Amino acid sequence: MSAWCDRLSLNTMTTKGWTLREAVEATAAAGLPAIGVWRDRVAEAGVDEAAKIVRDNGLRVSTLCRGGFLTGLDDPGAILDDNRRAIDEAAALGTHELVMVVGGLVGRDLVGARARVAERLADLVPYAVERDVRLALEPLHPVFCAERAVISTLGQALDLATPFPAHAVGVVIDTFHVWWDPGLAESVARAGAAGRISSYQICDWLVPMAADPLVSRGMMGDGVIDFAAISALVDQAGYRGDIEVEIFNETVWATDGVAVLETMKERYRDLVWSSLQS
Amino acid sequence: MSAWCDRLSLNTMTTKGWTLREAVEATAAAGLPAIGVWRDRVAEAGVDEAAKIVRDNGLRVSTLCRGGFLTGLDDPGAILDDNRRAIDEAAALGTHELVMVVGGLVGRDLVGARARVAERLADLVPYAVERDVRLALEPLHPVFCAERAVISTLGQALDLATPFPAHAVGVVIDTFHVWWDPGLAESVARAGAAGRISSYQICDWLVPMAADPLVSRGMMGDGVIDFAAISALVDQAGYRGDIEVEIFNETVWATDGVAVLETMKERYRDLVWSSLQS
Repeated sequence: MSAWCDRLSLNTMTTKGWTLREAVEATAAAGLPAIGVWRDRVAEAGVDEAAKIVRDNGLRVSTLCRGGFLTGLDDPGAILDDNRRAIDEAAALGTHELVMVVGGLVGRDLVGARARVAERLADLVPYAVERDVRLALEPLHPVFCAERAVISTLGQALDLATPFPAHAVGVVIDTFHVWWDPGLAESVARAGAAGRISSYQICDWLVPMAADPLVSRGMMGDGVIDFAAISALVDQAGYRGDIEVEIFNETVWATDGVAVLETMKERYRDLVWSSLQS
Repeated sequence: MSAWCDRLSLNTMTTKGWTLREAVEATAAAGLPAIGVWRDRVAEAGVDEAAKIVRDNGLRVSTLCRGGFLTGLDDPGAILDDNRRAIDEAAALGTHELVMVVGGLVGRDLVGARARVAERLADLVPYAVERDVRLALEPLHPVFCAERAVISTLGQALDLATPFPAHAVGVVIDTFHVWWDPGLAESVARAGAAGRISSYQICDWLVPMAADPLVSRGMMGDGVIDFAAISALVDQAGYRGDIEVEIFNETVWATDGVAVLETMKERYRDLVWSSLQS
């Protein structure tokens, strides 16, 4: 493994067509040290087998994606149960970071949805702490506020995290979701100072957008995001963890996974790694 | 004119198929006091004739839409000239408020684009003040940051406005663009306290979104925005000006304009006016 890619992690969503084993083996073969795993891949393999596959290939799991969807009004017990299972899976996979996409609106009550996020987060924290898993709140781009996440800025995620210890609740910095934020520099510094940066995820914002914003994430360099600027902020904030490439994109998904891995390594080296001082 | 609609304004974009004369006459016939005018309608009629049409029908012009697109690198002189023409048109139409959509990224330099907005705003302010026209900065939803406006939050718009007198630079509060903002209540109060609310524009956020977010604006009540909550904030902030319905939507555009006007009156009465204390 070259030193320049010793923090680079493949998120399984980037190579969506691969099983967990295929993704893990290709990641190891490409000389990367880590993988970010979605729960669908864990479910396919079974959690014990998934952990074994990762371990046998000498990788670490940078994050488990994802828990969350905390805003629903129906059956809060089921919501909490599912999140406890996600916490258990993260522990079994040996990752400290469980990415939380907190869920969207129910009806038109944004204030209520945000209040339920805070309440249910408080319900889950003790369970997570016992298993040494951190709940990593991911602010999503405001285009997803209605349907997917009522946390829209890094500052808002940090406000929600503040009542809890830094080892219990963290935040995810995903370039696609935060690049536009006029308060980004301040919030990244604040997240770093608080020791709460759980993950740095990268992909580009394409112009024009795809018709479905969810799959408008692009390979670094194919869109408008200034990776040097944002990576420098995250670096200066003291983050030294893995950097995950997570791309939802039909064209990327239609491309051979090995080629995707090679491209993401090159782009990472040229656009991200070169901006890291550490 | 019923008292409950004495602040309701039709933005010409809502009835896109109409000429200015058609829109003005229908607005007056519907008992509304005001119209928000886009420059394409002014250009078609000629500015003097446009002013006469509005005056002859006893309406006021709530805003002129729009100046802006200040971020370009080519030919800054042409950018400023076009904005000076927009200021002249606003003055000729007798409106105090020129809505400014400030423009998107050039390349990947968000910091530079924002700096050019601030610089060119400073260039334009004296010209606008001489003509008693206010430059009304409109934060656009972050989904438009790359292509249309590098001002994404009301707080950011207020920061940009702060160096200038309140009669020179204001802000637009458009429900579609700001509803998701976790800092909205604070920013609306701040805008009101500073005397900088130039316009309150309303339309809904549809779920699912249209493939082109630009035309995903819906009739109030057809989406997820809590108009009672936001209208109450704007009201409590002391805004007593016109409330403009501005909808970009293919279905609305395909509907008979008179029917659109009737629907928007009903929805305004039920969802917005009922939340105004003033």
